[in-house]
Amino acid sequence: MTALLFVGGGGALGAMSRYGLTILLSRFGGLPFGTFLSNLLGCLFMGVVLQWFAESDWVAGTALEHEPHRLLLAVGFCGSFTTLSALVYEVSGMLQRDELLTAFGYLLATLGGGFLFFYVGILLVRLLSA
Amino acid sequence: MTALLFVGGGGALGAMSRYGLTILLSRFGGLPFGTFLSNLLGCLFMGVVLQWFAESDWVAGTALEHEPHRLLLAVGFCGSFTTLSALVYEVSGMLQRDELLTAFGYLLATLGGGFLFFYVGILLVRLLSA
Repeated sequence: MTALLFVGGGGALGAMSRYGLTILLSRFGGLPFGTFLSNLLGCLFMGVVLQWFAESDWVAGTALEHEPHRLLLAVGFCGSFTTLSALVYEVSGMLQRDELLTAFGYLLATLGGGFLFFYVGILLVRLLSA
Repeated sequence: MTALLFVGGGGALGAMSRYGLTILLSRFGGLPFGTFLSNLLGCLFMGVVLQWFAESDWVAGTALEHEPHRLLLAVGFCGSFTTLSALVYEVSGMLQRDELLTAFGYLLATLGGGFLFFYVGILLVRLLSA
């Protein structure tokens, strides 16, 4: 039950941040920069958070004390800040308007960028804690 | 401000549903069935919701009255029920364990399934309202 509250709280913050970013970036043309940046930054933060937990567990010798933080930050916040359904909806809209190159580029940039930013997050924590 | 509350409420529900599904399905082996099913069902629901709005707007002649529902159900719930960061994290884990085929299959099944379920959602509403 407490676990659900942590996930729900993080999820609310993640969704609101994504919406805020979408509103902020909607002035810059028709491309879905809000969803794009949310997905990239969420993957970066996921890498940072998980690597940070992994390293401090290694020091402290226990993973259990991090469970509430993992639920709040990783499952809740990062899970909700990033999204697949909005990406699918936006790419479908581009395909419907025959913007094949934009659709394919947007999908590929999100996927490639997501993995890249996730690894950058991991590397950042490794460098800072080295 | 009210908009943020709708998005946050939907986001909390979406994240908690995703977490609940992950806990429920974690007993069925090591594959991330929770994230997988959340992403597919979230895309299905996104298709249903957006098509439903589109058709009732067409009938009622206004999109504004649906804005709170769009924020709660599409941006909040579907946006947070589906996730990219967990997918990236899980695929990265598979790659790290040299499970290349599983990683590629999981990524492809999520993407292909996401688009497929989104269109199935649209078609379902079209069939029901025809």
